Amino acid sequence: MDTLSSSQRFLNACWQKPVDRTPVWFMRQAGRYMSEYRAIRANHTLLEICAQPELAAQVTLQPVTRLGVDAAILFADILLPLIPMGIQLEFTAGEGPVIHNPIQSRADVDALRPVEPRETLAHVLMAIRIVRKELDGKTALIGFAGAPFTLASYLIEGGSSRNLLKTKRMMYTNPQSWHQLMEKLAQVIPDYLTAQVEAGAQAVQLFDSWIGTLTPDDYREYVLPYSKSIFAALQKTRVPMIHFGTGTAALLPLMKEAGGNVMGVDWQTPLDWAWELIDHHGSVQGNLDPVALFAPEAELEKRVKRVLHQADGRLGHIFNLGHGILPDTPVDQVKRVVDLVHQWTHRPIE
Amino acid sequence: MDTLSSSQRFLNACWQKPVDRTPVWFMRQAGRYMSEYRAIRANHTLLEICAQPELAAQVTLQPVTRLGVDAAILFADILLPLIPMGIQLEFTAGEGPVIHNPIQSRADVDALRPVEPRETLAHVLMAIRIVRKELDGKTALIGFAGAPFTLASYLIEGGSSRNLLKTKRMMYTNPQSWHQLMEKLAQVIPDYLTAQVEAGAQAVQLFDSWIGTLTPDDYREYVLPYSKSIFAALQKTRVPMIHFGTGTAALLPLMKEAGGNVMGVDWQTPLDWAWELIDHHGSVQGNLDPVALFAPEAELEKRVKRVLHQADGRLGHIFNLGHGILPDTPVDQVKRVVDLVHQWTHRPIE
Repeated sequence: MDTLSSSQRFLNACWQKPVDRTPVWFMRQAGRYMSEYRAIRANHTLLEICAQPELAAQVTLQPVTRLGVDAAILFADILLPLIPMGIQLEFTAGEGPVIHNPIQSRADVDALRPVEPRETLAHVLMAIRIVRKELDGKTALIGFAGAPFTLASYLIEGGSSRNLLKTKRMMYTNPQSWHQLMEKLAQVIPDYLTAQVEAGAQAVQLFDSWIGTLTPDDYREYVLPYSKSIFAALQKTRVPMIHFGTGTAALLPLMKEAGGNVMGVDWQTPLDWAWELIDHHGSVQGNLDPVALFAPEAELEKRVKRVLHQADGRLGHIFNLGHGILPDTPVDQVKRVVDLVHQWTHRPIE
Repeated sequence: MDTLSSSQRFLNACWQKPVDRTPVWFMRQAGRYMSEYRAIRANHTLLEICAQPELAAQVTLQPVTRLGVDAAILFADILLPLIPMGIQLEFTAGEGPVIHNPIQSRADVDALRPVEPRETLAHVLMAIRIVRKELDGKTALIGFAGAPFTLASYLIEGGSSRNLLKTKRMMYTNPQSWHQLMEKLAQVIPDYLTAQVEAGAQAVQLFDSWIGTLTPDDYREYVLPYSKSIFAALQKTRVPMIHFGTGTAALLPLMKEAGGNVMGVDWQTPLDWAWELIDHHGSVQGNLDPVALFAPEAELEKRVKRVLHQADGRLGHIFNLGHGILPDTPVDQVKRVVDLVHQWTHRPIE
């Protein structure tokens, strides 16, 4: 018998309050690895799904039904708010996002338009309302946005990039344009996330997926003030805030300084080590290697146990991967992890 | 006036002995960013240069002449020893290495042939002899090899890969094949490096470039025993051993346990932090961000100073990048770093 609903379980863990089982959800839990999702994608592009609230809501709910996770995360893309800013975005088969008018100069930065999310991103907010209604308070709903550094990197590189050479070149060579760009993004993002909370999101996650390419000194100088102002602006929403990046072993203390009640931990950084790096102030989320989901049953179980062992039953652990689910992941294995985590962490609430 | 030759300076730093200036060299210091190299590449493929000792030696020496670095590193590719093992290797324009017969099964592992480097890699050893003669003891010469994990990842993926999904799948699903593959590589590598030392290499570097995708637990189980046996076998050469990887903030203590007098540090891990992680046992090499070489002069100087500040004049720092030089790097900037490091670290030897 569960003492808490999934929703309470997830939210309690965000606030380091007692839970009856460790809550679990997965980054990119809705997506190509799931046949239900592929059935919809057969007739719609990614951007079409995002633009149609009924479809986005349906996809958001798929992993809740199939896996029994404790939180849903809105199906959307971190690059969506860039479209009303004036960016021509396309998702090409296999190559990921392509921006046809990348930022190359101060003039390009100046041309970015301000965004009123309640108007130009109303479809996202509508999807949130539908999902909340469907979930009926049982499962939590997480809203999200890209962090300014990661969004800036896509804007400048024009897509994914291994070295982020152009991004760092703008930082170093044209710092005024860099800071202007970050400032614009740091205005759009909290507005967008606040609107998501108003529409019903019960927590928000800021994805700074590529931040791990920066040195701590560069993070402090070029990124921290902007991420910090976003978290500060979001305080008034009173929802828990999750701060996530990859390759962050050396950045976690500074990311914590920027903000977030919950730090998302990549799979390379042991969870207990990560927790020490932030002096156990706040919750942690993670951090199974996404590739562990391809391992045989016994190996997968061993790896799930290790994460739980490192969390050591402390208040404030949300089970997740260290990055998103990979395209060919077997769904049964993902479901297995949900069940194991719930089973192995069952405890009475004092 | 220099008290030490470049060669002595580099070797002293490897052994944590006093130096008159901090020695400096760069990973991938010979390569496409240099016009002298492009002139040779106009008429020869990468593998042709590697196969012809006179050409390989000439390319190895280019950065010594042009930049004044304290150490040369043999021009070669970490995948070369795989060719006599039976691997069909090709370098495609822009895409990097492609292996046409990747390892997919235990039978593929079993089919890998043992290597007698003094026969099948004699051209590499000949290049070392030519370089040593040309350098005449003034500049040190570093030999190198890929570490077994990184070589295995190329063998299994068939080239570069973002997630190393196939590699980890073999680890988890087919551990016997994995261990057999690692054992075969761990036999070839010390033989190859020992032959390099006999031919004249005065230090060796083991490149475990992609190791940062592993959790520390997986490193301990699937990699450490093999890297450790390589370093143990190399002890008898009595030359300094450099152990390098990227994304290693959480792995450095285990990599140090595997071996190496000098730990190569990626640019994301502050040098002083890295040094603490290994309890200051041994030297460190690094760790300027390769992209810093694209920064304006003042910014580049600031970043060079930061690395030196973190090294704090302690015995045993070798200045380098946190990874290899990128293709379009301006040569003048690289030269500037050599001069600045030598100038700023000049001190009398007590």
